[in-house]
Amino acid sequence: MQNSKQQTKQDAMQQFDGVWLNANIATMQDNGSAYGSIKKAALAIKDGVIAYVGPQAELPAFDTLATPLYDMAGQWVLPGLIDCHTHLVYAGSRANEFEMRLNGANYQDIAAAGGGIKSTVAATRQASEQHLFVLAKQRLNTLLSQGVTTVEIKSGYGLDLENETKILQVASLLDQHHPISISKTFLGAHALPAEFANDADGYIESVCAMLPILQQLNLIDAVDVFCENIGFSLEQTRKVFAAAKALGLPVKAHAEQLSNLGGSALVAEFGGLSADHIEFLDEAGVQAMAKAGTVAVLLPGAYYFLRETQQPPIALLRQHAVPMAIATDLNPGTSPLCSLPLMLNMACTLFRLTPEEALLGVTRHAAKALGFADRGVLAAGMRADFGCYDISQPAELCYQFGVSTLQQLVIAGSEVNTKHTA
Amino acid sequence: MQNSKQQTKQDAMQQFDGVWLNANIATMQDNGSAYGSIKKAALAIKDGVIAYVGPQAELPAFDTLATPLYDMAGQWVLPGLIDCHTHLVYAGSRANEFEMRLNGANYQDIAAAGGGIKSTVAATRQASEQHLFVLAKQRLNTLLSQGVTTVEIKSGYGLDLENETKILQVASLLDQHHPISISKTFLGAHALPAEFANDADGYIESVCAMLPILQQLNLIDAVDVFCENIGFSLEQTRKVFAAAKALGLPVKAHAEQLSNLGGSALVAEFGGLSADHIEFLDEAGVQAMAKAGTVAVLLPGAYYFLRETQQPPIALLRQHAVPMAIATDLNPGTSPLCSLPLMLNMACTLFRLTPEEALLGVTRHAAKALGFADRGVLAAGMRADFGCYDISQPAELCYQFGVSTLQQLVIAGSEVNTKHTA
Ligand SMILES: [Zn+2]
Ligand SMILES: [Zn+2]
Repeated sequence: MQNSKQQTKQDAMQQFDGVWLNANIATMQDNGSAYGSIKKAALAIKDGVIAYVGPQAELPAFDTLATPLYDMAGQWVLPGLIDCHTHLVYAGSRANEFEMRLNGANYQDIAAAGGGIKSTVAATRQASEQHLFVLAKQRLNTLLSQGVTTVEIKSGYGLDLENETKILQVASLLDQHHPISISKTFLGAHALPAEFANDADGYIESVCAMLPILQQLNLIDAVDVFCENIGFSLEQTRKVFAAAKALGLPVKAHAEQLSNLGGSALVAEFGGLSADHIEFLDEAGVQAMAKAGTVAVLLPGAYYFLRETQQPPIALLRQHAVPMAIATDLNPGTSPLCSLPLMLNMACTLFRLTPEEALLGVTRHAAKALGFADRGVLAAGMRADFGCYDISQPAELCYQFGVSTLQQLVIAGSEVNTKHTA
Repeated sequence: MQNSKQQTKQDAMQQFDGVWLNANIATMQDNGSAYGSIKKAALAIKDGVIAYVGPQAELPAFDTLATPLYDMAGQWVLPGLIDCHTHLVYAGSRANEFEMRLNGANYQDIAAAGGGIKSTVAATRQASEQHLFVLAKQRLNTLLSQGVTTVEIKSGYGLDLENETKILQVASLLDQHHPISISKTFLGAHALPAEFANDADGYIESVCAMLPILQQLNLIDAVDVFCENIGFSLEQTRKVFAAAKALGLPVKAHAEQLSNLGGSALVAEFGGLSADHIEFLDEAGVQAMAKAGTVAVLLPGAYYFLRETQQPPIALLRQHAVPMAIATDLNPGTSPLCSLPLMLNMACTLFRLTPEEALLGVTRHAAKALGFADRGVLAAGMRADFGCYDISQPAELCYQFGVSTLQQLVIAGSEVNTKHTA
């Protein structure tokens, strides 16, 4: 009688795989408080998903003896960070041209020495899949140690079917074998390969032809184009987007970084995920993005590294409520900076984003930029991706740089070792 | 017979405590090659000091069975990095005012909310020596993980004898209990404490009175003054310098950061170690420094964080062969950036230093800025402070940021665990 009663009580109790107590939780949801924060809060997970997040006083009863408990003692919990724009699968180093330029070399000297994106394409084509995997894993491990749980990886240093496939396959392998969740973007239209010199239209045809093949291999989550005077024209971008749309693939673009070609509005026209860089975006483009729900991805690392002076139109983006994401743009040419926390600081310092805007930019808005509806905020039913930080307030994560405050990182419900080096 | 012969042979052989083979060594000495580099090189240590550095072919015979050997397989060895300007013993966070400012607050709002340097002074005065030690150690551990082996620490958040003593005692304890070697700078003349409001001359007298007491306690290696319109005047700076000189203590200054007061020339007049910041330094000041052998300490982190636009006079410093050092200026108000590698990148990106200049700035020239003749370059007789890096060329350390390439760190002949967190 006693036993069966107890059994009934336990059956009625919630079953959790882990419970975090006495936390301050920045849910990053739009709940009326800054950072969507809840004080004196608890978070519970079950089967890799958040089962409860809210006031500790309202946490459902659960079997406290059988469930792993974590006392946060006032530490802050935030969603796992999301780096929604990287090119982190590449080989070779551009340190040499970096040094040449600082010693007074001009672009011709550097081109003559085999520098520029061509050198990265050559090195990446030459590299084995295994070598690319090892190099990319080191970069992912670094991001992991910073609290990053989801990373977008673009191809674009292969520029032919064989090598674009190789890069996306490395991204796919990383998704399977690294704790970080990977989103794969096909950026065949990144630069013109030597084989198509003076035939950009021909290369765009070739890119469109790669699309169904790579999709068949399950290697594409989204399609990106470098839409710029030194990249591909608006019409060429439209061709790639149309081919993507025909296959049901979402699109995005490197747009308005150096001039206002209208790439962002084109992304919006295709109901695309994001327009990235956008330093030269005008109000019409902002309005088009707002209407389409396209995310503005800001890349302060490239802005810093290239010593740009044209700021993205932050005031207009705010005015039209375009969600802003922040990413590393990690790549060997224009942003060899493997640190999302540094981007938080740079977004605030260089672009004058508020810390809340910056943190939304690497959580909720970054998830939206990748088309993920299951992460980026802490709420019941979302993936259990979160970090625990020893900080007095979320703004700490933007304000100070260098000393890690990350105490614990959980991805899909599993605690991961952020010193991961395997 | 055989035995005694062998014994004689061994007696004749060099005895080393460790030998690094097959290395590329950037000695940072002025030996005619970039970075003072030696290819196919070896390095040997004995009793915490470098016993040999040079071509491997010329390494003296030694007992290979009894000596720990490290095969560098072409990795690069550089001197331990030196951060010659920090304020890293402090309590409290300024994240709140950072956030307020980005939300549109002005200086009055922030002052009214208790912000600014006053908040750091209040928090540091309130903090126990033990608490300050723990906070500072976290920052030192972070620097250690970056390959830093010597750090300068300034007081200046105490502003009275009791609290300036406390800060310098923490620095002294860190020197004893942390692998990093610490240089202690008394910066009593950092700001005017509330007790001396409207009586800067009175406070300067008090600072001069603290000097012999702190020296008696063995807490001062050098004396610094914040010489600026919002700090102390040239005449007040001169008083402190004169008092320091009378005690045989070397001087330095925060000078020409916001205006050209002549602080750098005053440092030179006193044969001082360094003039730091120096964005507004003119050619006369540069010439004075050149003549006196005073080092120019550049602080790109503060330049970045404050969004300054006036660059230090790099061309003039080069022209007059003034040695340039690079430091973090780690402090909670104007450079909450605990990363010397980031400063290498910023020195190149923002100030257009060459990678070689930047690396000299955290090795040879930083040692000179602290008055150390026993470190900063790799040469026989120097302290065995060095790092081993998995890089293709030294410029890598300036060009890419985030992914650690440090494989091994040796301080005074002992390998240290760069994951040190104790
Ligand atoms: Zn990019
Ligand atoms: Zn300073």
